[in-house]
Amino acid sequence: MYTRADRVRQIDRLIGSIRATGSPSAIGLDTRYEYIPEDFAARHSDGGRAGAIYEFNARLLRGLRDIIPCVKIQAAYYEMLGPDGMSCMAKTIAEARALDYVVIVDAKRGDIGATAEAYSAAYLGTDAPFRADFLTVNPYFGRDGVEPFISACERDGSGVFILVKTSNPSGRELQDLTLADGGPMYERLAGMVSEWGAPLMGSEGYSSVGAVVGATYPVQGADLRRMMPHTFFLLPGYGAQGARASDLAGCFDASGGGAVVAAARSLICAHRKTAAADFVRAARDEALNMRDRLLEAIRHARPR
Amino acid sequence: MYTRADRVRQIDRLIGSIRATGSPSAIGLDTRYEYIPEDFAARHSDGGRAGAIYEFNARLLRGLRDIIPCVKIQAAYYEMLGPDGMSCMAKTIAEARALDYVVIVDAKRGDIGATAEAYSAAYLGTDAPFRADFLTVNPYFGRDGVEPFISACERDGSGVFILVKTSNPSGRELQDLTLADGGPMYERLAGMVSEWGAPLMGSEGYSSVGAVVGATYPVQGADLRRMMPHTFFLLPGYGAQGARASDLAGCFDASGGGAVVAAARSLICAHRKTAAADFVRAARDEALNMRDRLLEAIRHARPR
Repeated sequence: MYTRADRVRQIDRLIGSIRATGSPSAIGLDTRYEYIPEDFAARHSDGGRAGAIYEFNARLLRGLRDIIPCVKIQAAYYEMLGPDGMSCMAKTIAEARALDYVVIVDAKRGDIGATAEAYSAAYLGTDAPFRADFLTVNPYFGRDGVEPFISACERDGSGVFILVKTSNPSGRELQDLTLADGGPMYERLAGMVSEWGAPLMGSEGYSSVGAVVGATYPVQGADLRRMMPHTFFLLPGYGAQGARASDLAGCFDASGGGAVVAAARSLICAHRKTAAADFVRAARDEALNMRDRLLEAIRHARPR
Repeated sequence: MYTRADRVRQIDRLIGSIRATGSPSAIGLDTRYEYIPEDFAARHSDGGRAGAIYEFNARLLRGLRDIIPCVKIQAAYYEMLGPDGMSCMAKTIAEARALDYVVIVDAKRGDIGATAEAYSAAYLGTDAPFRADFLTVNPYFGRDGVEPFISACERDGSGVFILVKTSNPSGRELQDLTLADGGPMYERLAGMVSEWGAPLMGSEGYSSVGAVVGATYPVQGADLRRMMPHTFFLLPGYGAQGARASDLAGCFDASGGGAVVAAARSLICAHRKTAAADFVRAARDEALNMRDRLLEAIRHARPR
């Protein structure tokens, strides 16, 4: 039998794993079939598109584990392939888990309590068919829609990243609306997320309840870092979406921790831009490049 | 080849189908395995839990078509069963489609543009593996996150229901925040939804871009009805969540149209509360009961 004391908090594992690899980064497996080199796809088409995507994902996961601590799997790209795509997602998760990656499933689920409970059963906990260490969650339903996910985290040590400030241009339309008692809506939400996470603090000073903060809004990201000192950030938007390493530096804490940067297309499509022998090598080169840029930007932003 | 002129707008089909059955209602297939009568589940367990759920859904769909125009399938309950559950959802959708139900997939998806495009490919359009006539969409990402879904609607005549006011108690925490220039956030969103839907008007005066309005907030629902005269409403919350027929009357237009009421547990679990011979008969009795209550409440609320 396992007791609470035995349980590893995934937020602590994430922080430890970032430290071990020296890179605060996640490879985003937003794998479209079109991203796979043609010859590789042709050689792995027995299982259809989903089969080729799994093989591509697995090669990347095996080839990058020493330099990347974390994988972010975007559910939409698997859902669009139907049940076969969902099997591919489950297999990709299992492969990542076997390689000891910290696994974020980026599904942005959210619903009323009873339904959020069902989504939680799909993604969090030992019996979940798509078992994630972290799940991204949409907060539009307020506390009772988020509660089932947080309860699951409390039970098994997993975590969530709740959308606070998204990376897309029109995220502002709702998230930045100014409230009657001052400040934009996303700051109010930041307060809620901090409060929800307060009872789930890990041993490294960060809660199991994290936040998604778009890397494309550097000023707001730095403000949120100050407002949410115990909330770990998942930062999407690096690379293909336009955010540079210097935009991200303010989202890290004074020790250079507190956040993980997700990059998808810039890594998985790196083979299109280089003369590297294969897509794994191209992704490795870009992952090392990204790590160096991130560490330099973080160092540069810190007081000496 | 098919041209735009040949295309049926699903919003018009929904309105026609409500008229034909005389009932503005949707059966919500939020089917948990535990809801299925034990003897039925035992006889249909060859395909595991997902197999039994499909058989249960199919019986209900076949038995209620003459009195219910529309089915709402809650994705979470299928996702929690993994790839098998997703196959069950696809089969349930196919069965509903074969029976000519209007099919709403209640998945509340939402993400940045590129990812919303992938979700749209999963649920909308002739090639979608989980092809819905309508999909529920979360608006937290603003216009560019909603755009791919709306483009899909424009292409193939399908529709969306965008979350405006959710039925759960803490939906208020974000949705009702008062804005600096007056009014709650959900009213601002209502304006956006009306605007997004304006180019997609059907022949019955309603747009393909509808709104989810929780039946549990009758006063706000009636306000929204006035503010959004061309937006069709999907009203969840009837029955098990506590909304009564009289709470819903204000969400209908002056002709008694403009909305569809979704009920899940009160229909699919009706067999638990009655002495009816079987679950289909119990659901039929409750569906007729619900229809009569709704029509009476709508009639009562209208000026003579």
